[in-house]
Amino acid sequence: MAKSKFEYVRLYETEDKCLPNTWIIVRVDGKGFHRFSQDHSYEKPNDLRALALMSKAATTVMEEFKDICLAYGQSDEYSFVFKKECQVYSRRGSKLATYVSSLFASSFVFYWPDYFPSARSQYPPAFDGRVVLYPSDQNLRDYLSWRQADCHINNLYNTCFWALVQKEGLTPSQSEEKLRGTFSGEKNELLFSKFGINYNNESDLVKKGTVLIRKKVPVLLENGETRAKSQIVQQNIDLIGDEFWKENEHLLKS
Amino acid sequence: MAKSKFEYVRLYETEDKCLPNTWIIVRVDGKGFHRFSQDHSYEKPNDLRALALMSKAATTVMEEFKDICLAYGQSDEYSFVFKKECQVYSRRGSKLATYVSSLFASSFVFYWPDYFPSARSQYPPAFDGRVVLYPSDQNLRDYLSWRQADCHINNLYNTCFWALVQKEGLTPSQSEEKLRGTFSGEKNELLFSKFGINYNNESDLVKKGTVLIRKKVPVLLENGETRAKSQIVQQNIDLIGDEFWKENEHLLKS
Amino acid sequence: MAKSKFEYVRLYETEDKCLPNTWIIVRVDGKGFHRFSQDHSYEKPNDLRALALMSKAATTVMEEFKDICLAYGQSDEYSFVFKKECQVYSRRGSKLATYVSSLFASSFVFYWPDYFPSARSQYPPAFDGRVVLYPSDQNLRDYLSWRQADCHINNLYNTCFWALVQKEGLTPSQSEEKLRGTFSGEKNELLFSKFGINYNNESDLVKKGTVLIRKKVPVLLENGETRAKSQIVQQNIDLIGDEFWKENEHLLKS
Amino acid sequence: MAKSKFEYVRLYETEDKCLPNTWIIVRVDGKGFHRFSQDHSYEKPNDLRALALMSKAATTVMEEFKDICLAYGQSDEYSFVFKKECQVYSRRGSKLATYVSSLFASSFVFYWPDYFPSARSQYPPAFDGRVVLYPSDQNLRDYLSWRQADCHINNLYNTCFWALVQKEGLTPSQSEEKLRGTFSGEKNELLFSKFGINYNNESDLVKKGTVLIRKKVPVLLENGETRAKSQIVQQNIDLIGDEFWKENEHLLKS
Repeated sequence: MAKSKFEYVRLYETEDKCLPNTWIIVRVDGKGFHRFSQDHSYEKPNDLRALALMSKAATTVMEEFKDICLAYGQSDEYSFVFKKECQVYSRRGSKLATYVSSLFASSFVFYWPDYFPSARSQYPPAFDGRVVLYPSDQNLRDYLSWRQADCHINNLYNTCFWALVQKEGLTPSQSEEKLRGTFSGEKNELLFSKFGINYNNESDLVKKGTVLIRKKVPVLLENGETRAKSQIVQQNIDLIGDEFWKENEHLLKS
Repeated sequence: MAKSKFEYVRLYETEDKCLPNTWIIVRVDGKGFHRFSQDHSYEKPNDLRALALMSKAATTVMEEFKDICLAYGQSDEYSFVFKKECQVYSRRGSKLATYVSSLFASSFVFYWPDYFPSARSQYPPAFDGRVVLYPSDQNLRDYLSWRQADCHINNLYNTCFWALVQKEGLTPSQSEEKLRGTFSGEKNELLFSKFGINYNNESDLVKKGTVLIRKKVPVLLENGETRAKSQIVQQNIDLIGDEFWKENEHLLKS
Repeated sequence: MAKSKFEYVRLYETEDKCLPNTWIIVRVDGKGFHRFSQDHSYEKPNDLRALALMSKAATTVMEEFKDICLAYGQSDEYSFVFKKECQVYSRRGSKLATYVSSLFASSFVFYWPDYFPSARSQYPPAFDGRVVLYPSDQNLRDYLSWRQADCHINNLYNTCFWALVQKEGLTPSQSEEKLRGTFSGEKNELLFSKFGINYNNESDLVKKGTVLIRKKVPVLLENGETRAKSQIVQQNIDLIGDEFWKENEHLLKS
Repeated sequence: MAKSKFEYVRLYETEDKCLPNTWIIVRVDGKGFHRFSQDHSYEKPNDLRALALMSKAATTVMEEFKDICLAYGQSDEYSFVFKKECQVYSRRGSKLATYVSSLFASSFVFYWPDYFPSARSQYPPAFDGRVVLYPSDQNLRDYLSWRQADCHINNLYNTCFWALVQKEGLTPSQSEEKLRGTFSGEKNELLFSKFGINYNNESDLVKKGTVLIRKKVPVLLENGETRAKSQIVQQNIDLIGDEFWKENEHLLKS
């Protein structure tokens, strides 16, 4: 039972350290969530319980990794931003990706009953994860802008799609057909003229997704005093313009 | 809100396809399970509920990936063997590692109540994952032998350690001290002379860990007939010798 | 002038060890050799001096790396096969590729005067290099078959092309036009009927390329005795069939 | 002779694109140049012909790659800096490393007779190459500072070492022994007191190494006018302080 005779197999493992001094993003994506959302009767176009559960799972991940300075989520995906100088797990990409993905997934199931109290989920969901590196602050901002623009585009589409299905009685494929090739302006117009929906009045949660950052928040102590304490806060705000980055300058500082 | 302006960031993603015609192993490991097992009052040296839950989670993963031909688990780890010719997700290593890790973790939480019915777990656990490639069948066998030898060595140690703590009243550090540098033979002797334990009579589950493979199993149909159907079966058997591999020759065939 | 202040930059270097127990092939390719061959008045379709110089450069590389067991060259490329168990430079891919490429290139220039005695080359040529890994012996044989089939296909084409240009007076683009879409049989027929060339009678050097292996060769010693000594020998033989591999079984053995 | 049957082997090639928006450095290093310099009777501590030949080879590489904006060389090594936004060969690391290494090596041999006119070199030299990525401008400057500090440290040592050997008659190992553990100040003092050498008066070529950049240089035209033309110029100047970077601000701009 000599372990040493077999131990050479460890030499087959490879190193995958992320380049130092670059932003590390781990993005997790629900696997087959089209089906998962159907199987669990998600409300359409947006299920607020599901979005809240996603952000709860993301908060759990962020509490575990102090080096995550920002997370951004929409639909069935969440992106975690590790600081440039992060050294956790020696910056090994596969460690970070698997640890984040698995903790996200287990948290999703763990907190499920708090958001869907009526029933245990039917089966355990999976989330794949990937690591992407961004050298410059502008790259990082562009990445987050890309995801937020994606959120906007998809949500506008989905709002139209489900209005046509739910209120107009179209089949999914008829609805798809009707929306094919339309521009944003046309979709806004359709929502307003047909359904009386002013898309601008939709909630920022669904239009902009969710940003998680740490903030000093005043906390009431037992003795009646308050103290500033770092907490993870959720905001549904614009990441594309400069305002957020001016207000949170520390995020881009080493 | 032009998505295209930001879309260049996709070019920063990298490819990580596994070399074709090699065995792909994904091994998941519990993160901080020393503490997790304490927090959830695992029985020592082995908690049979926890081992059964691990194998349930592994079975869930194996049902999802038809290309996993064998899985081997012990303690808080599980290794999944993807066939050499597997093409799932174009053999992208990070996809495989994150998908397996996250599904394993979410299944662990999902099935928890079936194995620990008295209480929800206290917090969601995480499992990291890694991909290792093995070119030859001998390499693959040596990898599995390495893990099974590890199981044996750890289990013999733990059996002694906990006997000293539980039956002899030693503190953990006294127990550690006593076992430092001892050989297998001495540990066997200690168990027998001090505690009347014949280590050979311990269950194969704890001595050898758990092997999952697919087997044609006769299934009773509604009409009373039986038919051979492929099922995932658990065995607590030796992987180091030749016998298992002779009986399951198909595993090493393309 | 504290070096240590800057030395952190070494941490940005990455490891790129080749998977153990796999065949490592380094293939070098002439950069822009279409132009290089024109600038140096290579004879067409094949310049025997150039082919001999390529093999001389390859032999120099093979003398340097004892772990190269076989090399195969044709046209302006050469492939070097490192044994599966090779440990040179810890199997670092970039080391192997750059060392082989640079030694090949410098040897090409160094030995140029021995093959083109009339003139120094007009400018220094470059050869890019790449590393490819093959897990099984069949993969290795298929790789070499691929290169040798490529040699045959290109040489048959080039023989036709240059016959049309040199003997028929066609322009290169007319010649290209004429050959577009033709099958091997048609090219053979064209050569025979138009130019009286029986392609089968062409030399194996141009049809099959060049194989370099080490062989025990009887060497005459000063005292008149002979002794078997390992030498690198050139052969222009078939690598696709089984014969070569039967005669040189040791090549595939560890 | 169906090539297609074997062509699957191409799928075993891997991609190795460098992360976008980062500085790419390719450094080439002479293989075994301690011996090479002895075999070719290099003057010690510095052979000006050899240094000039190195810079000639580096200039050849830089003329080939327009995306190299700076090169720095000392002793038997040269570093080439590719601009952050460089797209040549799709930023494939192995392409860049092998192309640069092989062109450097072949140029070294090609131009040898212009610097060592009395004799052909005895054998072809090799240069290994590596790719390192640096995300920030500061990283890039620190890398170059690291190499220049290394040049200074080695040259001061070598100047002492060879003075002891050549002028004092010490053996190499006695000389090594004498210098072990000495600080820069002590070496300066030794040179001055024993050999009357003021190290500060040594040439910048040996103290600082060689920087190659492109500069607009006035060129005399046939019609008597002059015009600014981009040329590669050699400078033996400090890269560690700010002055060089202020004078050449364009180098760090995209």
